[in-house]
Amino acid sequence: MNHLVQRRILPWRTARRTFSSSHHHRTIHPLTSLPPRVSPSYNLRPTATLLSLNWPSPPRNILITKKKRTPGITASLIEYATHLSSTYPSINIILEPSSASELHADLPFPVYTWDEPPWNATPELLSEKTDLVCTLGGDGTILRASSLFSHAATVPPVLSFAMGTIGFLGEWKFNEYKRAFREVYMSGAGDAYANLSFPTPPALPTNTENASSDPLDTPLSYADIRGMSMGSNRTARILLRNRLKVGVFGPDGVRLNNSSSEGDTYALNEVIVHRGSSPHLKIIDVFVGGRFLTEAVADGMIISSPTGSTAYSLSSGGSIVHPLVSSLLLTPICPRSLSFRPLVLPAETPITLRLGEKNRGREVEVSIDGKRLSDGMGVGMEVRVLGEEVRSPTGEWRGGVPSIVRGVEGLEEREEDHWVGGLNALLKFNYPFGDQDGHR
Amino acid sequence: MNHLVQRRILPWRTARRTFSSSHHHRTIHPLTSLPPRVSPSYNLRPTATLLSLNWPSPPRNILITKKKRTPGITASLIEYATHLSSTYPSINIILEPSSASELHADLPFPVYTWDEPPWNATPELLSEKTDLVCTLGGDGTILRASSLFSHAATVPPVLSFAMGTIGFLGEWKFNEYKRAFREVYMSGAGDAYANLSFPTPPALPTNTENASSDPLDTPLSYADIRGMSMGSNRTARILLRNRLKVGVFGPDGVRLNNSSSEGDTYALNEVIVHRGSSPHLKIIDVFVGGRFLTEAVADGMIISSPTGSTAYSLSSGGSIVHPLVSSLLLTPICPRSLSFRPLVLPAETPITLRLGEKNRGREVEVSIDGKRLSDGMGVGMEVRVLGEEVRSPTGEWRGGVPSIVRGVEGLEEREEDHWVGGLNALLKFNYPFGDQDGHR
Amino acid sequence: MNHLVQRRILPWRTARRTFSSSHHHRTIHPLTSLPPRVSPSYNLRPTATLLSLNWPSPPRNILITKKKRTPGITASLIEYATHLSSTYPSINIILEPSSASELHADLPFPVYTWDEPPWNATPELLSEKTDLVCTLGGDGTILRASSLFSHAATVPPVLSFAMGTIGFLGEWKFNEYKRAFREVYMSGAGDAYANLSFPTPPALPTNTENASSDPLDTPLSYADIRGMSMGSNRTARILLRNRLKVGVFGPDGVRLNNSSSEGDTYALNEVIVHRGSSPHLKIIDVFVGGRFLTEAVADGMIISSPTGSTAYSLSSGGSIVHPLVSSLLLTPICPRSLSFRPLVLPAETPITLRLGEKNRGREVEVSIDGKRLSDGMGVGMEVRVLGEEVRSPTGEWRGGVPSIVRGVEGLEEREEDHWVGGLNALLKFNYPFGDQDGHR
Amino acid sequence: MNHLVQRRILPWRTARRTFSSSHHHRTIHPLTSLPPRVSPSYNLRPTATLLSLNWPSPPRNILITKKKRTPGITASLIEYATHLSSTYPSINIILEPSSASELHADLPFPVYTWDEPPWNATPELLSEKTDLVCTLGGDGTILRASSLFSHAATVPPVLSFAMGTIGFLGEWKFNEYKRAFREVYMSGAGDAYANLSFPTPPALPTNTENASSDPLDTPLSYADIRGMSMGSNRTARILLRNRLKVGVFGPDGVRLNNSSSEGDTYALNEVIVHRGSSPHLKIIDVFVGGRFLTEAVADGMIISSPTGSTAYSLSSGGSIVHPLVSSLLLTPICPRSLSFRPLVLPAETPITLRLGEKNRGREVEVSIDGKRLSDGMGVGMEVRVLGEEVRSPTGEWRGGVPSIVRGVEGLEEREEDHWVGGLNALLKFNYPFGDQDGHR
Ligand SMILES: NC(=O)C1=CN([C@@H]2O[C@H](COP(=O)(O)OP(=O)(O)OC[C@H]3O[C@@H](n4cnc5c(N)ncnc54)[C@H](O)[C@@H]3O)[C@@H](O)[C@H]2O)C=CC1
Ligand SMILES: NC(=O)C1=CN([C@@H]2O[C@H](COP(=O)(O)OP(=O)(O)OC[C@H]3O[C@@H](n4cnc5c(N)ncnc54)[C@H](O)[C@@H]3O)[C@@H](O)[C@H]2O)C=CC1
Ligand SMILES: NC(=O)C1=CN([C@@H]2O[C@H](COP(=O)(O)OP(=O)(O)OC[C@H]3O[C@@H](n4cnc5c(N)ncnc54)[C@H](O)[C@@H]3O)[C@@H](O)[C@H]2O)C=CC1
Ligand SMILES: NC(=O)C1=CN([C@@H]2O[C@H](COP(=O)(O)OP(=O)(O)OC[C@H]3O[C@@H](n4cnc5c(N)ncnc54)[C@H](O)[C@@H]3O)[C@@H](O)[C@H]2O)C=CC1
Repeated sequence: MNHLVQRRILPWRTARRTFSSSHHHRTIHPLTSLPPRVSPSYNLRPTATLLSLNWPSPPRNILITKKKRTPGITASLIEYATHLSSTYPSINIILEPSSASELHADLPFPVYTWDEPPWNATPELLSEKTDLVCTLGGDGTILRASSLFSHAATVPPVLSFAMGTIGFLGEWKFNEYKRAFREVYMSGAGDAYANLSFPTPPALPTNTENASSDPLDTPLSYADIRGMSMGSNRTARILLRNRLKVGVFGPDGVRLNNSSSEGDTYALNEVIVHRGSSPHLKIIDVFVGGRFLTEAVADGMIISSPTGSTAYSLSSGGSIVHPLVSSLLLTPICPRSLSFRPLVLPAETPITLRLGEKNRGREVEVSIDGKRLSDGMGVGMEVRVLGEEVRSPTGEWRGGVPSIVRGVEGLEEREEDHWVGGLNALLKFNYPFGDQDGHR
Repeated sequence: MNHLVQRRILPWRTARRTFSSSHHHRTIHPLTSLPPRVSPSYNLRPTATLLSLNWPSPPRNILITKKKRTPGITASLIEYATHLSSTYPSINIILEPSSASELHADLPFPVYTWDEPPWNATPELLSEKTDLVCTLGGDGTILRASSLFSHAATVPPVLSFAMGTIGFLGEWKFNEYKRAFREVYMSGAGDAYANLSFPTPPALPTNTENASSDPLDTPLSYADIRGMSMGSNRTARILLRNRLKVGVFGPDGVRLNNSSSEGDTYALNEVIVHRGSSPHLKIIDVFVGGRFLTEAVADGMIISSPTGSTAYSLSSGGSIVHPLVSSLLLTPICPRSLSFRPLVLPAETPITLRLGEKNRGREVEVSIDGKRLSDGMGVGMEVRVLGEEVRSPTGEWRGGVPSIVRGVEGLEEREEDHWVGGLNALLKFNYPFGDQDGHR
Repeated sequence: MNHLVQRRILPWRTARRTFSSSHHHRTIHPLTSLPPRVSPSYNLRPTATLLSLNWPSPPRNILITKKKRTPGITASLIEYATHLSSTYPSINIILEPSSASELHADLPFPVYTWDEPPWNATPELLSEKTDLVCTLGGDGTILRASSLFSHAATVPPVLSFAMGTIGFLGEWKFNEYKRAFREVYMSGAGDAYANLSFPTPPALPTNTENASSDPLDTPLSYADIRGMSMGSNRTARILLRNRLKVGVFGPDGVRLNNSSSEGDTYALNEVIVHRGSSPHLKIIDVFVGGRFLTEAVADGMIISSPTGSTAYSLSSGGSIVHPLVSSLLLTPICPRSLSFRPLVLPAETPITLRLGEKNRGREVEVSIDGKRLSDGMGVGMEVRVLGEEVRSPTGEWRGGVPSIVRGVEGLEEREEDHWVGGLNALLKFNYPFGDQDGHR
Repeated sequence: MNHLVQRRILPWRTARRTFSSSHHHRTIHPLTSLPPRVSPSYNLRPTATLLSLNWPSPPRNILITKKKRTPGITASLIEYATHLSSTYPSINIILEPSSASELHADLPFPVYTWDEPPWNATPELLSEKTDLVCTLGGDGTILRASSLFSHAATVPPVLSFAMGTIGFLGEWKFNEYKRAFREVYMSGAGDAYANLSFPTPPALPTNTENASSDPLDTPLSYADIRGMSMGSNRTARILLRNRLKVGVFGPDGVRLNNSSSEGDTYALNEVIVHRGSSPHLKIIDVFVGGRFLTEAVADGMIISSPTGSTAYSLSSGGSIVHPLVSSLLLTPICPRSLSFRPLVLPAETPITLRLGEKNRGREVEVSIDGKRLSDGMGVGMEVRVLGEEVRSPTGEWRGGVPSIVRGVEGLEEREEDHWVGGLNALLKFNYPFGDQDGHR
């Protein structure tokens, strides 16, 4: 108990918490009661292609999402959240509504969440409050987490742990979570953190049975931060993944994808137009840069980000495009043509898919990052896409999904390799022929 | 009127007709009242790859199908059926139920059809009565006509007229219909027809305005047949298109595709297992020759005949396989793999697609020749496919869809070219680069 | 003379050997001194796709070829030949000229070979004398062995041992050689062998140190054969691989590929026309069934057998075709076209590649099974290809390369799987994504 | 000296010419006697993706190259050069040595050229003197022209006329040459040119027969320029095509591609490593960003610029990449793998191809833009590639091949379409299926 109070007087605590009593611990709080978001900056590091993460002050509001219906992962979430809560006292844990109601009774600290309905009010609030997103699951979990920010121009950094499944987007192993979080938490602390005033660290519990010898389990003190901020300039490495800005419009030009607001929907992987359960070919007019390119007669069309080039576009025959190549991919799905080769276009080129007259009576389905829009698309409707710009005219990095790239301890200088490594280890790129059993 | 009576005493007339009175002309008759089917034989011609068609006696029961909801094609059907009826007096016209009820009032002769419900009783009857199928439409119309015989081991020869649309399967032009039909009707007549006794031909109407100078419009007489059967050994050329024998089985091994009978369903193009409107990848176990080949993680799988190699399989990246290559194609649809290359297997290899445990909760859709089976496929279900054999152990040709190949008049010696011609003219195979406008 | 008579009477024991003195052992004999070839028949087995091998009398003349310049394989050849010679007394070992001169001094028995020059006289003789071919090496070694019979209509059965390298065509492991050879040697012995009279087997050496307990090391006696031929009807399984018949013709129509004879050259994998070291595109007119198909503008063209579908054609994007699909593959190499899809054509379709006028001044290279023809191909030259027929009009199997398929002992009933197995084990067909290390 | 001063004052009229006597006209001058190069600047235009061309002062030294051995094109070169010389009096015509010696006698003005040997001395001089390059031919002619600047960091703008052949890179039609040149010549003249003082234009010949009514044929006067520079701010549109920087190194790390200098060779399309006339697979180690990516077993490897994505890389299955996507393509040629998908990498990623030990005894060939390097590449040799940066850290555009994009008169606002247009018109992208003759 004392321990918990201690936590509350650490520098980032909120007044509200100071007065919280223990019965609050198992409660669910609304997002509105959280302090405002701390937004990091991203900087190009010399001789490197990844960016470095710099917090102006330590992150406090941490959203943790997980793969659904997987007991092992639920247990990991509890372990992870408990670690954060006990080691980083000022931290607030945000969970998705379903997780919050499932887990809050098991957690010795309060959790924050939002009301599912009315959905349309929530996303803005979430992006105004979240400092950092952590995902436990596979690529699908990352896509779902990113879709929580699909109407936000700025996504918090995302730290992803692959949980038993193949993950091309998230690459941290769960057993690295303490080191991973510390690295992110302290990233760029150098200047900003040094000026903060810290309390005396709490006396540690002396119960040797429970005492961990791992310094990463010790609640963070001023000395720690000071030491780190002085002695180390190791920062988390960020791959800023461009998204697509997607608008869906009716034949009358009225926006359909996002009834509650006027804005576009951001996609991390791709937007797909597909025949769905109709057994017939679809006819889709494709416009590039405002000009008619071609009439696609196909199962469907994919407009993908470079990140999505290893997802559906790959299965449809697209090239693999490095996430740092600023571009959009136009990949047909089963085109009734011998000569429809996938295209890679500049990210700033607007692309439009229009469902022309010839499809009369036939609907198509529109999906963003594997999630179907509730309404199908009929004759005259349009999907309009533009690549997100992740660099402002003044050269500042912003937007995109800032993905925290794994660095193997001691091999940080090879940090840039993760993508190439993933090609080989996960996609079995150019996997060699032959009998590897070698029993000949 | 006399004219019609004349017709009725021609050699193939039925007693029933002799006593028909004019009010019968606009009526619809059931298939049961038709004489039994006349089945042709197919013979390998020296130095040729196509077969020749030989009728033991002239075909009488002609099924004409057409593309739906296309007024121009309906008019063509009326023109065509009227021509057959007036020129080949013993012929009976069969129409699909919808066409029969739409058109019978406009036709100066009776039409035959079947009751749509109960559907399951009909197909056997249709295949017991039909001597020849004529289609007016595109490939879809041919597929639909062939599906009327999807439970029959023997399909009547099919004469297909492409109507304004692209047709890879049917290649006759509608304006050739008189010549085309005569060629088919007389094919192989040499020996069989010569022994028939013919009446004196009716005196032709002398009204010069209506008189056609085209001998193909003159009702066929003994002299015509004699002349043809003597002077000409030109026969219709048949491409026997192998089909697939498809069985769909539940987890309990019970057959699902065909509740009314125990048999397989025949497919002309392909059978497809597909995710349909589910936005998620499907996991399909593939067995070849009884042995596990691979686990396909994909949108779906296609098992195609060589005929179907230019249909969906082509769009999914399959090779183009000549219809005379006795084979099955196994082509994945958007596989999540870099190394799933389409396979071409011997026609006699059984292939099974099984929906394994990993798909729990996810259905897939099964389609045959572009027509979805009413029930989706759940965990444990299997699609089992085998190529149809079109040659009996004793070397006789049978089964398959006997497609009548177009021969340009005077160029019959180049008749074998139609497939190569279609690659270039329709599929734009290896279409040359460059500015064909030549205005440089 | 006496020598030949002896052989005829006592096939298991040659007079030469009985009376041979040691100076004979290390000599090289010409092929002419060998008894004539024993040609097996091939029979379709019920419910199986592979053929069974039946010797009319035991094979005697065994050609062994090996990969060049690989010391380990040379040692294996010595071990193998010595085993055959000591266990199957009537056997004669044929080596390629280079192997013969390299090894004869190390072998305690005579070897047969031919004179390299004049090359053109040799192949006929080799195919008149060879009963069985054994290869030690990889696919390249099999291709080279098969090319020794590239002018012969009938190739002896081929038993191939993969030696440390990847082998898609040959699948026996070298450590199985005793069992493998015995199986082949006895294959179909049932009726034919039982009527032969056998001598008393030689007394075995009694030196216990050298004595092998393996019955496969014991010289074969009448009793063995009798036992086998009676007790077992296990036969070697044969995959008859169709070859291509290739003719190369000058602009004047004169045959170029084969100056010494009038015949075609047979290819096991493929014939390739390629730009070679010219850095420019080639323009090749392609004719199918005598008709112009297309003008290929490309690095080159491949015409492949189904066996070759996993070789160069695969690398160029062709489908994988099962060797039992009677077909020819037409696969372009780097075509300057978006719409040149690989084609699979009936084996009996003649294909011609012609180097047209537009290539003036540019030669192309022609290779058969990876071996370049000495002369390049100039304007007006043609490569003409036809699939080999492996079944006579009377249904007899003949021609092709009869490849002895490996059967794992006790799993012979699954024997048919070898091809599917090779796709997975060697070609890494549809290799699954993901982190197989499983350390997550 | 006076000569040079004259030029500076009167750019439209050189002293040399004023006083030249007729015997000067047919002579060949060395490049050294030319005034120094005028280098334009390139500016980003609002709401456009192409750059605008701005001359600080009018271009004077014009290099014209042509396709070899094509009489029609030689005639066009004479027509073009004569037009430039008579209409733009201060212009100097540079021809390649072979053209210069072939044509100078036919030209009524002097031409400039360089000595072929010693070749290595020349390129620097050429790039120090050339203001503008004009090519008459196809893509090959553009590649050859660009290779004249393959060691220069700055290439002059290139104006390309497609001559009867397909041209994806050059798109002007020859009959537009007067308008095209004027547009380029005056591009951005607004400010710079207005401050120049001009002489009185020469009196025009009054011979009405020869007088052209085309104002584009009239020698340019002060009034013209004033008018243009005032009235029009139409500028030529530039597509800055990134090149590749290629270095070839021996096993000892010594540079091989460029003996005369230390620098890299620039490629416009691609660099290729290929088996050439060796019939065997090559084994190439590929490093990306300094890290081992994969061992390619293949005919060869292509590293291509986005411009080259429609050249050899396309034929090898690569995606089509818009030239403005800053990237490198890594495309294998006939890889012996099912899983080697083409990659698109950031332009700033260094790629290395190394010929490893496994190729012992086998050379490969290295080609840049379709031109083979004289020496093949042996074991241990490396090709190192990096994308050229076309934007300086301060945002200035430089480097690349500045290609002048065709604008159809009156449709300049649709100018950006040229690439999309080329896909359709030249590459027959997604060419529709079906019978376009429409005679059905
Ligand atoms: N035929 C195909 O390849 C299909 C692919 N998808 C992809 O699935 C995504 C949705 O994911 P889930 O909801 O998990 O669906 P899911 O359960 O169908 O699995 C999609 C698979 O794609 C992988 N994946 C997702 N994004 C990736 C990326 N950027 N790079 C590499 N691998 C990636 C995941 O790890 C998972 O293995 C969509 O954005 C779409 O790209 C969806 C349907 C079909
Ligand atoms: N992405 C794709 O390529 C898809 C293809 N299909 C194909 O459509 C067929 C059903 O046809 P419809 O009901 O008319 O559907 P549809 O209205 O979707 O049209 C299918 C198209 O395929 C053509 N086609 C059909 N069979 C062909 C063949 N054997 N060779 C060449 N072209 C052929 C038709 O001419 C038509 O252009 C299915 O059997 C399937 O093969 C169906 C759905 C998607
Ligand atoms: N199999 C293939 O596709 C081969 C392609 N090439 C290409 O040819 C180029 C050299 O050209 P040439 O000396 O004229 O050789 P060439 O006479 O072999 O013709 C090459 C063809 O490629 C076209 N081309 C060149 N660059 C292009 C580009 N960037 N985009 C679209 N088309 C383009 C040309 O118009 C011409 O049709 C090389 O840079 C290489 O890219 C060279 C050899 C084989
Ligand atoms: N880019 C490519 O894929 C190339 C392939 N080749 C192939 O190599 C063959 C000649 O073999 P080598 O002299 O050993 O040349 P090589 O040393 O170039 O090796 C050819 C490779 O192909 C494999 N191979 C040969 N035939 C095969 C078959 N039918 N199925 C599966 N794999 C097969 C061999 O195991 C070896 O790995 C040619 O017939 C041609 O098919 C030749 C040149 C280039």
